[in-house]
Amino acid sequence: MDIQADTQPYFSSGLPADVIERARAVAAAPVSLVTGVDVALVEGAGDRTAAGEVADYVTRAAGDFAAEIETENGAERAALLRAELARRGLDGFVVPMADEYQNEFVPRHAQRLAWLSGFLGSAGSIIVLADKAAIFVDGRYTLQVRDQVDVDVFEPRSYLDVAKWIGENLESGQKLGYDPWLHTETAVKALRDACGEAGAELVVVDGNPVDAVWTNRPPRPLARIVPHDIRYTGEPSADKRARMAEAVKKAGADALALSATDSIAWLLNIRGADVARTPLALCYALLHGDSSVDLFVDERKVDAALRAHLGNQVRIEPETALAGALAGLSGKSVMVDPASAPAWIVDRLEEGGATVLRKTDPIQKAKALKNPAELNGTRAAHRRDGVALAKFFCWLAENAPKGTVDELSAVARLQAFRQEGDLFRDLSFDTISGAGPNGAIVHYRSSEKTNRTLGLGELYLVDSGAQYLDGTTDVTRAVAVGTPTAEHRDRFTRVLRGHIALAMARFPKGTTGHQLDVLARMPLWQAGLDFKHGTGHGVGSYLGVHEGPHSISPRPSGIALEPGMIVSNEPGYYKEGAYGIRMENLVAVVPSEPGEDDSPFYELETLTLAPIDRTLIDPALMTPAELDWLNAYHRRVFAEIGPRLDEPTRAWLEAATAPIGV
Amino acid sequence: MDIQADTQPYFSSGLPADVIERARAVAAAPVSLVTGVDVALVEGAGDRTAAGEVADYVTRAAGDFAAEIETENGAERAALLRAELARRGLDGFVVPMADEYQNEFVPRHAQRLAWLSGFLGSAGSIIVLADKAAIFVDGRYTLQVRDQVDVDVFEPRSYLDVAKWIGENLESGQKLGYDPWLHTETAVKALRDACGEAGAELVVVDGNPVDAVWTNRPPRPLARIVPHDIRYTGEPSADKRARMAEAVKKAGADALALSATDSIAWLLNIRGADVARTPLALCYALLHGDSSVDLFVDERKVDAALRAHLGNQVRIEPETALAGALAGLSGKSVMVDPASAPAWIVDRLEEGGATVLRKTDPIQKAKALKNPAELNGTRAAHRRDGVALAKFFCWLAENAPKGTVDELSAVARLQAFRQEGDLFRDLSFDTISGAGPNGAIVHYRSSEKTNRTLGLGELYLVDSGAQYLDGTTDVTRAVAVGTPTAEHRDRFTRVLRGHIALAMARFPKGTTGHQLDVLARMPLWQAGLDFKHGTGHGVGSYLGVHEGPHSISPRPSGIALEPGMIVSNEPGYYKEGAYGIRMENLVAVVPSEPGEDDSPFYELETLTLAPIDRTLIDPALMTPAELDWLNAYHRRVFAEIGPRLDEPTRAWLEAATAPIGV
Repeated sequence: MDIQADTQPYFSSGLPADVIERARAVAAAPVSLVTGVDVALVEGAGDRTAAGEVADYVTRAAGDFAAEIETENGAERAALLRAELARRGLDGFVVPMADEYQNEFVPRHAQRLAWLSGFLGSAGSIIVLADKAAIFVDGRYTLQVRDQVDVDVFEPRSYLDVAKWIGENLESGQKLGYDPWLHTETAVKALRDACGEAGAELVVVDGNPVDAVWTNRPPRPLARIVPHDIRYTGEPSADKRARMAEAVKKAGADALALSATDSIAWLLNIRGADVARTPLALCYALLHGDSSVDLFVDERKVDAALRAHLGNQVRIEPETALAGALAGLSGKSVMVDPASAPAWIVDRLEEGGATVLRKTDPIQKAKALKNPAELNGTRAAHRRDGVALAKFFCWLAENAPKGTVDELSAVARLQAFRQEGDLFRDLSFDTISGAGPNGAIVHYRSSEKTNRTLGLGELYLVDSGAQYLDGTTDVTRAVAVGTPTAEHRDRFTRVLRGHIALAMARFPKGTTGHQLDVLARMPLWQAGLDFKHGTGHGVGSYLGVHEGPHSISPRPSGIALEPGMIVSNEPGYYKEGAYGIRMENLVAVVPSEPGEDDSPFYELETLTLAPIDRTLIDPALMTPAELDWLNAYHRRVFAEIGPRLDEPTRAWLEAATAPIGV
Repeated sequence: MDIQADTQPYFSSGLPADVIERARAVAAAPVSLVTGVDVALVEGAGDRTAAGEVADYVTRAAGDFAAEIETENGAERAALLRAELARRGLDGFVVPMADEYQNEFVPRHAQRLAWLSGFLGSAGSIIVLADKAAIFVDGRYTLQVRDQVDVDVFEPRSYLDVAKWIGENLESGQKLGYDPWLHTETAVKALRDACGEAGAELVVVDGNPVDAVWTNRPPRPLARIVPHDIRYTGEPSADKRARMAEAVKKAGADALALSATDSIAWLLNIRGADVARTPLALCYALLHGDSSVDLFVDERKVDAALRAHLGNQVRIEPETALAGALAGLSGKSVMVDPASAPAWIVDRLEEGGATVLRKTDPIQKAKALKNPAELNGTRAAHRRDGVALAKFFCWLAENAPKGTVDELSAVARLQAFRQEGDLFRDLSFDTISGAGPNGAIVHYRSSEKTNRTLGLGELYLVDSGAQYLDGTTDVTRAVAVGTPTAEHRDRFTRVLRGHIALAMARFPKGTTGHQLDVLARMPLWQAGLDFKHGTGHGVGSYLGVHEGPHSISPRPSGIALEPGMIVSNEPGYYKEGAYGIRMENLVAVVPSEPGEDDSPFYELETLTLAPIDRTLIDPALMTPAELDWLNAYHRRVFAEIGPRLDEPTRAWLEAATAPIGV
């Protein structure tokens, strides 16, 4: 799944009492589901069913919320917002797709843009003025926005046109409001410059005006926060805090202000359940030079076990104390990541007399460099994931040709197999399950409306992943139902050759993913084909399935690939209206034999263990080295997964991983 | 030859009367060699010998100048400079390796750093204070600087340490002088910031203090400027001026100030001979919005033919008029390229009340996109170059195994073969001719001191090129003398596979050379090997053998490869103390079949036509597709070059290009 062309669910919810009770009854260990999508809380050996129920509930809750998000509500809701703006003396207001933490996946309570307009894309913004409004989206969403939004109320525009639209539509002296929690400082500056050009004024609001008129707004999630065990993290929080405090001091700062929830989760070895499919807790933190931390969090999410885990160097304070704490840093130098910090934080620091040092959050890189415990964890998680995948593809091979499998039943079946695995907590994203032409839609999510039966002679694409306590997985396979066409095989083999070229890469220290990207594309380029998404995104350790700072992409990046980084390897090919192909394994950057003069070289260790559909491979198009890689990979899949399967599945896997082209 | 790790000759000279006379006598057309390395002036059918004599003279003049450049002069010359600084009330002075045009290759009269210190590298700078001095060089020159410079006078430091050294050594209130002609604005700002940190002051000088004490300073070159014929340029200067004037106006400027001599040569379709190995004329120009030009040039270089060529839209003025012209742009917006313009120009514009628009010179890109006349010209030039190369390698194959060839005699022989070709004007750079271990020195130039006989069982590397009126060439081959070792063949085949991977690349519009670079390296990386220079540099059309803005390099570049660009494809491998391998052809970016949805795809047309040593190739290490490329290339070399050779050479070439691995 690609970070550049992907939507994600954004639903996080309170759980109803009956689900909590059923989870409590099923789980062996004590369960304390208060509110929040609290999969992480379902602890102990008996948790699988409870976790599954919670996951099911999330899917249903998503549906309930989605029912509130309707195109036809746009006019009425825009009118409500306009009345509120008039009450406040504002001529307009900016509604971005963002939460107060700049999370990639915006929780339900912060889905203001979706509530207002009906738009369900993962990125965009709306500006509402007294007599007109526009919705700004990127190229992925130019069609979708017209499906989901009342274009008479919200004029669709390119996200590149925000400043131009402001210039054309705001009049001199008018006031455009913005919520400083929902924009980075950079974004605020761009808006301010655009308003200035128009002679208008950008003004900060106190309390979001959308919230004032959103009567049925979901509550903020309150999932209990849990310690993440040292056997999975491999490094005590105290050591991480000391390391990062050193980095902060070395950069000339006294403290680091953190709003990135994944950075805080990594730093404190904690996990939450406030955000769908990602075990994050909504909170803020200040890391001080003495390596102590102020953690600003709703105390209802904190129990004694967490307090014991955090120790007395981590002071737990309510989120409302953040403003005072930032003001208290007067005279200090405070590091803030301009790519993720809400403008509100920068404003409070500067008003309070602190010096703001704008630098990339050092935790992003530290988190990306997995330690041996994390790498071994992800290897183990991938073995369990591989067992579920073998069961699924065996089941699929038996049933799909009968015409009895559709996209949604496949999703359910794959989830059920995964839930059987130890340490399973959740999916890592909503499964992409695309039959035939639906496979060509890169950010497809199957629904009752679009659900399609897997048809003979068609390709089926499934991109899925799971959150295990010891690791996060993400894997895509395209498989043929029945006999594929010659074109299917040609295209699949080109995608596979690109995947293999990257998998076989060996490279010196300092090489970026941007440099390697071409390896995955050249077999397609040679035929005038391409795929319009990145080749690889970083993956967390029981954290985000998308994480930085590294990637493998045609987009320039100055970030070198370093040992310990996990990244996806997922070239694809999509024929609109016909079929989609994507071949995705996760890989870890690992040291290779040193080069000449002992210079460091690295290579990629493939983590994902799942068969590649042999019927889609044309060995005549491959080099001996590529066939060697393929056959060795299949041997390894069978060696590692085979012994964990029952006999019929094992036999199926043996055939599915038999050598080819030899 | 690689732009990142290369030195160039920097010698331009007045020609003595006897050479002029001999050239005049030999050439069929009138020759007017006044001063300057005036190869371009030797016109007409009978020019080959004269051109060769002039080229020989350049080599000798280089030697004469080099004799003035001695390590042991450093102390005395530093003392002279210090006395001059004291007279002017300066505490120090910066001496960069730069001329007043920021030319890549610095003419002799501007070789102040070499004269002062003895250092002959292509990049570096010196700061002289009253009681100490330092020379700042990059990693290529850390050894060389200690050979060539008296380190008791000039302390060798990394070029990264300039600001630090200023901070440590300049005292508060002291004045450090700089010559605004020799630094870009960016460079001045860095110096000014460093001085500011130290409490010192950076002050501009009026007249370079080195010149005041350099008694035997060579004169500025005065080579006659000649029109470059429309059959070679393919586009009248008036059209180029109109196109570029449009670009300047579109960018919001009223005029473009030009100091880049290659931009001016392209814009006006003129060539000069003021700079070694590159047909450039030292001059400045202002392009106005009405597409007229003020050309500031020593009028001794201008004759009636040139005036007729330039027409009345190009006003010829003395260089001394530049200051007044810049001051006269008061109230106008003037585009200046901050990467190449001397600070002096920016200062005059700003003092005069013009608005300076800092933008990349649009001519750099326009010049890189060769038109059909230029592409056909370079193809023709490469055929003639290929004839010379076939004769040379045939001669080498016959003689080198006898032990009768050394690096310098090979250089002379290759030059002689090239001089036989039509439209030959000069070499495009000093030939790199490295036998055995000398081949491992990337920027090697053979001299009487280092000259080495080509030995049996050794590799010989020759990197050379020529300036023809219709195109500039640059080619490298490594050949085995006698029987190569298994290691030679392994390494050579890896380099060749990288070369072929790049040569076979097909890629969509928007792809940069930075993205393709990995293709040329992966076969080496797989064995833990690499080469520490770029893979490709742009090449001009009877202009610089190095030109931008594109390249193929591990260094990030935002410049996409576009049809018409010429670029080198030159991976290599160097084993210190043993041998060097480089496999270089020039290629042109050309349109390929459109991709799916008619999206533009490009490919690389190989221009260079010279055999690749078959004895160094191990076909067992190559894929069928790679062997197909190699055999097709050799077929083409023989088809295009064979018919132009005498029978013995033709027979040799036929064998040298016979199919391999089939």
